[in-house]
Amino acid sequence: MAINRIIYVRKTDGREERFEARKVFRTCLRAGAKKEEAKKIVSEVIRRIYDGIPTREILKMVLKKLEGISPSIANIYNLKEAMISLGPSGFVFEEFMTQLLLDYDFKTKHHIFISGHCVKHEIDIIADERSGKKRVFMIECKYHNISGIYCGIKEALYTWARFEDCQNFFDAAWLITNTKFSEEVIRYAQCKNMRLLGWRHGEEACLENLIEEQKFYPITILRNLDESTRDKLFEKNIILCKDLIKYDFYSLSRLCGIKKDKAENLIKQANDILI
Amino acid sequence: MAINRIIYVRKTDGREERFEARKVFRTCLRAGAKKEEAKKIVSEVIRRIYDGIPTREILKMVLKKLEGISPSIANIYNLKEAMISLGPSGFVFEEFMTQLLLDYDFKTKHHIFISGHCVKHEIDIIADERSGKKRVFMIECKYHNISGIYCGIKEALYTWARFEDCQNFFDAAWLITNTKFSEEVIRYAQCKNMRLLGWRHGEEACLENLIEEQKFYPITILRNLDESTRDKLFEKNIILCKDLIKYDFYSLSRLCGIKKDKAENLIKQANDILI
Repeated sequence: MAINRIIYVRKTDGREERFEARKVFRTCLRAGAKKEEAKKIVSEVIRRIYDGIPTREILKMVLKKLEGISPSIANIYNLKEAMISLGPSGFVFEEFMTQLLLDYDFKTKHHIFISGHCVKHEIDIIADERSGKKRVFMIECKYHNISGIYCGIKEALYTWARFEDCQNFFDAAWLITNTKFSEEVIRYAQCKNMRLLGWRHGEEACLENLIEEQKFYPITILRNLDESTRDKLFEKNIILCKDLIKYDFYSLSRLCGIKKDKAENLIKQANDILI
Repeated sequence: MAINRIIYVRKTDGREERFEARKVFRTCLRAGAKKEEAKKIVSEVIRRIYDGIPTREILKMVLKKLEGISPSIANIYNLKEAMISLGPSGFVFEEFMTQLLLDYDFKTKHHIFISGHCVKHEIDIIADERSGKKRVFMIECKYHNISGIYCGIKEALYTWARFEDCQNFFDAAWLITNTKFSEEVIRYAQCKNMRLLGWRHGEEACLENLIEEQKFYPITILRNLDESTRDKLFEKNIILCKDLIKYDFYSLSRLCGIKKDKAENLIKQANDILI
């Protein structure tokens, strides 16, 4: 698995960074591949990469290899992309987060108007802790439909100012994104005691861990799910693989107006992931 | 000038509003047309409008009529569009505002980094009042390159939070835009003692009045100024008509690499406006 030369990979936002084999290795393990399988994939990647290779191309390579082992492993590896494909608007991401928090023992409401001290605010999610400190959080969701975009300082600043204007209603502010936070945001949030939840942020409570723990996979994790089918499923409030497997292929096909073999294939894929 | 039927016009953002003849009338006067000329133009517009007409089409009609009276009047009428055409990025708008405030007896600096209590901030403009209360303002500039977009509550909120984090350095926050503010922003700013400057906002200190008072017209007010020439002039820091008339056509042509007859025409137009 050793690599003797330094290779730079190009990220989605155009920046370059040093290729790290252990990143690919770890992500294969996360997706459920065995150690030996992960090692093999990394060797294959090392053999084929070149300076300036887009990270997206590496992702493709890995996915193809994982698919050969198990289609459901490839799906889970694809979680990051799946969280980007909830779009185009942020609505489904908010719905997704509302349900995920409910699973983590919060009482949640979303799209609530609150009259602050100066103006009225539309709050994305209000989450009440049912146990412990029983705090009430004002949650701002920031969804990006392109990967490689960081949730930046302006989002953190306006979340704070909104919280400050609604202080009578909430104990703390919480900013949630489907991508990463900039370092500035992390510093600002620590300084203001603001909670953050995002991709690869924090040790335990990063978004991907919460999702994996509860097998809270969005349907966009299913390979070959085309946009039109995705939108039909979202329209019927089928956002999660968990939602999908409640149906048999016949009723799913009728409910969403999709072909029976497509419905059957989706349900099968979802079942494989949730095992 | 009377209109017997109610006509709805379609604004750039898609919303409809009732056509008001006096708006056209007033704007013609602002541009320097005589009362009789303005009345004639309004009658012509009333004769030709129809339900659902885009406001842009009315603007075109009026401009054509004003041009017949005097090309420089038409240019001034076009100020709103000119402020939209400073783009594509907000950089020129910030430079423009820095210079305008200097003309209004502020000492100005721009793009300054300030270490706030929590994080470092890049401040668009810092403006020191030279007389009166001698306050120091932290200014956030919000530039839109499409008309009909309001400066919204998120901008006001993050401006406030930034100010709050830098309170040791400034006496007040100030939000400036080249378009209009939403009603929410106006309420929030009043509540927070935040200063606003934008299009048609406030009675005396709205952006168009400040510009007209000092004849602080951007070169984008010149009709038929193509994008490529605009960018060449901006590159040489020629942002205002005032800057342009400092040159003779020969040196302007050489400095910016534009044709002599084009340079001559631009200088002539700028002179006409500044008379």
